Amino acid sequence: MSKETKYLLSESDIPKAWYNINADMPIDPGETAWNAVLDPATQKPLTPDALSAIFPKRFVELTASTDRWVEIPEPVIDVYKLWRPTPLIRARRLEKALDTPAHIYYKYEGVSPVGSHKPNTAVPEAFYAKDEGATGMITLTGAGQWGSALAMACRFFDLECHVYMVRVSYYQKPYRRILMESFGATVLPSPSDTTEYGRKLLAEDPDHPGSLGIAASEIVEAAATLAGKLKFGAGALLGPVLMHQTVIGLEALQQFELAGEYPDVVIACNGAGSNFGGFAFPFLHQNFTAGKNTRAIAVEPMACPSLTKGKYTFDCADAANTWPLMKMHTLGHSFVPAGIHAGGLRYHGMAPHVSALYDHGDIEAVAVHQRPTFDAAIQFAGEEGILPAPESAHAVKVAIDEALRCKEAGEAKVIAFNLSGHGHYDLGAYDAYLKNELEDYEYPDEAVQEALSQVPEVALG
Amino acid sequence: MSKETKYLLSESDIPKAWYNINADMPIDPGETAWNAVLDPATQKPLTPDALSAIFPKRFVELTASTDRWVEIPEPVIDVYKLWRPTPLIRARRLEKALDTPAHIYYKYEGVSPVGSHKPNTAVPEAFYAKDEGATGMITLTGAGQWGSALAMACRFFDLECHVYMVRVSYYQKPYRRILMESFGATVLPSPSDTTEYGRKLLAEDPDHPGSLGIAASEIVEAAATLAGKLKFGAGALLGPVLMHQTVIGLEALQQFELAGEYPDVVIACNGAGSNFGGFAFPFLHQNFTAGKNTRAIAVEPMACPSLTKGKYTFDCADAANTWPLMKMHTLGHSFVPAGIHAGGLRYHGMAPHVSALYDHGDIEAVAVHQRPTFDAAIQFAGEEGILPAPESAHAVKVAIDEALRCKEAGEAKVIAFNLSGHGHYDLGAYDAYLKNELEDYEYPDEAVQEALSQVPEVALG
Repeated sequence: MSKETKYLLSESDIPKAWYNINADMPIDPGETAWNAVLDPATQKPLTPDALSAIFPKRFVELTASTDRWVEIPEPVIDVYKLWRPTPLIRARRLEKALDTPAHIYYKYEGVSPVGSHKPNTAVPEAFYAKDEGATGMITLTGAGQWGSALAMACRFFDLECHVYMVRVSYYQKPYRRILMESFGATVLPSPSDTTEYGRKLLAEDPDHPGSLGIAASEIVEAAATLAGKLKFGAGALLGPVLMHQTVIGLEALQQFELAGEYPDVVIACNGAGSNFGGFAFPFLHQNFTAGKNTRAIAVEPMACPSLTKGKYTFDCADAANTWPLMKMHTLGHSFVPAGIHAGGLRYHGMAPHVSALYDHGDIEAVAVHQRPTFDAAIQFAGEEGILPAPESAHAVKVAIDEALRCKEAGEAKVIAFNLSGHGHYDLGAYDAYLKNELEDYEYPDEAVQEALSQVPEVALG
Repeated sequence: MSKETKYLLSESDIPKAWYNINADMPIDPGETAWNAVLDPATQKPLTPDALSAIFPKRFVELTASTDRWVEIPEPVIDVYKLWRPTPLIRARRLEKALDTPAHIYYKYEGVSPVGSHKPNTAVPEAFYAKDEGATGMITLTGAGQWGSALAMACRFFDLECHVYMVRVSYYQKPYRRILMESFGATVLPSPSDTTEYGRKLLAEDPDHPGSLGIAASEIVEAAATLAGKLKFGAGALLGPVLMHQTVIGLEALQQFELAGEYPDVVIACNGAGSNFGGFAFPFLHQNFTAGKNTRAIAVEPMACPSLTKGKYTFDCADAANTWPLMKMHTLGHSFVPAGIHAGGLRYHGMAPHVSALYDHGDIEAVAVHQRPTFDAAIQFAGEEGILPAPESAHAVKVAIDEALRCKEAGEAKVIAFNLSGHGHYDLGAYDAYLKNELEDYEYPDEAVQEALSQVPEVALG
């Protein structure tokens, strides 16, 4: 076995194709309609033509594709080369501090210029839009992690980028807004005066704080007005997004060959599925087709436990009830999670692929509280140097728990997790933790029951 | 010639020894007393014993060493492995945007966990302190780049870390303070109530904004009180610091072999010398001993042009006139540079090694204004993705200027610069730039003349 700390690949090792789990899903799409996307008005499946008014055509094609391997376009690989392949790192100092016989590895996506895994899908989406003659892209963002990835990708392909940022974040967390603007993006506090809906809300309350749901509704209105010149950039949830992210797991597979080991368990935080899917799906492919038996654990916050406590049913993709219905593990689209610092994990639903795999028993899920998650993040930073993003810290927490179980059991298991981003934009959260001001929000049963009661009844025909 | 974007090395390529330019300095120390360190009270050279009360003994030994290669201790290499070797990247997209025949390469030190080159010296300094039985380290920091590197290094070697942070930065720029605290450091706003001097200033003005000079005086008092239990961590200026940083240039030399090219010019920003020295000295070694002829350009801000406009003479190392006298290019220790955003370049003096080499004609220096520097940074980010630290942007600016000169002349020169850090903690500066609020501060002749008139007269011998 190798003695290295980091397992590095060369540029020629960047995967030539993404892995499309549609080809291997252990569930027949007809069986549970797990991958149907329904028009919220008619509850009939949306046609590719309807979807192509919003998304790039290529993106819509990929949604339905069952090709196992989808070639990565050369211009996308050229951009990936700026920071990919990302390192796989053996956390030797952490292992020693935990005094565990387990081997702990982490794939580090924070080396991307914007500090997270998000550009893995932003870049191909911008490429498709450019390739199909769009003049720009439009999207929404909470604290700005997705928005900054799309802003960078649009700059690379010489596209406009319009980002609707939740108004309260726009003013309170200006750093990622400035990063987006540095890449030439137009960032609008939502509600904004660019849509009828936004103007109405601002007339009622000029200091309206906004929400992702409101931003989503503004996007729908703005995209319709712009009639296809701007394509919508999707940061999570949808099949092609998860597929674009599989470069992470595909690289990790090669890196484990260099390390001469194979993971017994892979772990990733899970907000709307793209980080978890990107890391875990290539290992599931090995489980499905090559006789491997790796456990895949999705980690979610106790304050927003869509897999572990949600219902598997059709629900709206957005809080405002204007986006399509998808079958997913959901807490109800009107459920408002408590204000935990892992903003990227505060989503009521879950990617249909991840939901179906969980329902089918192919993956596991664990929910963790905020404070022990930050405990784990601080311990990790003290040993490995990298301060994790609060989202990524959820995976750190469960990896440490697994390593401690190995210590008790005396088992030298191989544990791998995806460190999806660094925490340089999240120091406010660490400050609150260090001042002992963080709360552990219990999952409020009644709120979820109330929200689930508003989930539309869908009778597929 | 290779077609790669990034030139990566494996861990076994981390240099086994630092390069000590003392062995090759083209100036006899006796000739100009360029490397003497004088007691400010007596103006006599400080003895190793006196210095060892403050610095680790090994650090003091290295100050005088003329061994060309100094072995890097194994525990230091083990920590370097967490992020080193850092990549050398060919800026192919930038070259294309500039339409230049030049080849532009940058060494990227922002991949370190704290985002800059500073840990290259923080780690060995903490190792020496631990090895010699100290319980911790003490230092001062402006905006916190050096402090966060030392905090991380101390955490790795299980040492206390006490950082005196200029009070106005402590409150206005909390992010790096929180990063230091996340590594377990004690960060004190200076003036603080831990020293007599600090208490006196706070009694006069409880909201005293502080300065690096005041923090320096507090450190001297606190270190004396603590009687050697805490060692002082030096972030720049001194010979061993520059030597520790030569891992940067030594790796780059190996990476240029992989690229099949050799730089005609190397460029680095220059505040107190350690970033420039770390990148350029290994190339100077090739100039001195292997017949190479690479130009080395130190870039400084027009608002603080210690090489291009300063006087080469003995001056105090700190603004408060309590630290030793060193021979250096200086604007006068009482010179207060304008508030440019590249805080790391706002220092009145310059490392004695860099000063002597400049005086002797072995290196070049260029001063640039703030606004065109940010123009260059934005262009660089748009092509290469990485938003540079404002300090590092000075090197970007001069690299682009050189590349444009090559375009005019039709010369395919090889240009290399050190991108010493990322700008994730400097978005406030980018916001000011994007709002067109940055000023280009002219170098104020009278202020420098006034400050130079306060430089002590030293009669050696």
